[in-house]
Amino acid sequence: MPAAIDFHYDYSSPYGYFAATRIEALAARHGRQVTWRPLLLGVVFKVSGGAPLPSLPLKGDYGKRDIPRFARLLGVPFRMPSKFPVSGTAASRATLWVRNTAAERTGALTLALYRAFFVDDRDISSPEVVAEVAATAGFDRAAVLAAINDGAIKDQLKNEVEAAIAAGVFGSPFVVIDGEPFWGADRLDQVERWLATGGW
Amino acid sequence: MPAAIDFHYDYSSPYGYFAATRIEALAARHGRQVTWRPLLLGVVFKVSGGAPLPSLPLKGDYGKRDIPRFARLLGVPFRMPSKFPVSGTAASRATLWVRNTAAERTGALTLALYRAFFVDDRDISSPEVVAEVAATAGFDRAAVLAAINDGAIKDQLKNEVEAAIAAGVFGSPFVVIDGEPFWGADRLDQVERWLATGGW
Repeated sequence: MPAAIDFHYDYSSPYGYFAATRIEALAARHGRQVTWRPLLLGVVFKVSGGAPLPSLPLKGDYGKRDIPRFARLLGVPFRMPSKFPVSGTAASRATLWVRNTAAERTGALTLALYRAFFVDDRDISSPEVVAEVAATAGFDRAAVLAAINDGAIKDQLKNEVEAAIAAGVFGSPFVVIDGEPFWGADRLDQVERWLATGGW
Repeated sequence: MPAAIDFHYDYSSPYGYFAATRIEALAARHGRQVTWRPLLLGVVFKVSGGAPLPSLPLKGDYGKRDIPRFARLLGVPFRMPSKFPVSGTAASRATLWVRNTAAERTGALTLALYRAFFVDDRDISSPEVVAEVAATAGFDRAAVLAAINDGAIKDQLKNEVEAAIAAGVFGSPFVVIDGEPFWGADRLDQVERWLATGGW
């Protein structure tokens, strides 16, 4: 079986959310699984010199228009959160815990957290909110809260983010297929073609 | 007849080049013409806080991979120039002169200059090179050189770039359809759909 594809995403990234709604079905069409890799763009930006979209002159205004337009095009429910961006640390730790213990359900948790943030305007920077959303998605609330505060999971997330940066990841979503990098929700057509053809 | 669509592009932008090879045919499929609007990203970056791609950590390395890969996908000839980026001032002034005097040939000049830079590795920051490329494309060499040094054209370019920034343009390529902005060569599918459907 070919290697899983890596899906890197930040929980405050609308484009990461959009791609997350499609990546698992896209990969499955080509016999691939997805390794869900939550990312902390705040850490990445210290290396890349990047900054959150809303803080960028001109580009921030464009994002306000492009993001809901992209959502409508995809038919993905979306509402700009009242607090944005927020820290994805708690959500990312919960995600790693699920990946460690029930990997096949990582996508389901990811989408539940994204929807909580980008549809229901829940503040997923809060461990309690993350645990509640996870519980609604069928995970054990107390175990999720414990994972968010688990030193080993904290270290795992730190190491994952550092490894992602070392591998050249700088944005969200960021897909890596057998070492080949694709940045952006607007690269999913290229991701699909790469998977279908083996590259060009 | 519906309004022309605005195509903003910087002469040092590979993605601008890629989109330039397609925009006129794309617009024509929907009964539209193209207004070619050369842009100076160096001026834009002073407002946006942006920077040339090669100077950006992580993103610059990604660009080195994504740009030739994108070119291969589109079937567009491409070779990274040995000197990159370069000033697009001379090329942009020549372009405005052609637009002022023979608008329907602006796309042809643009593509000739882009190919000189991104295929033949000519340094199009040089007025002499711009005039020579233009001459090969059928324009009057001396007139082009004169236009590059013409105070009115200089002012026109300055005003055009300022107007673009005021309209929210911050990257290349950047397409505006009846006020609706689309940034990036990877948004041409959305540009086409917007033209076909009138929006969503």
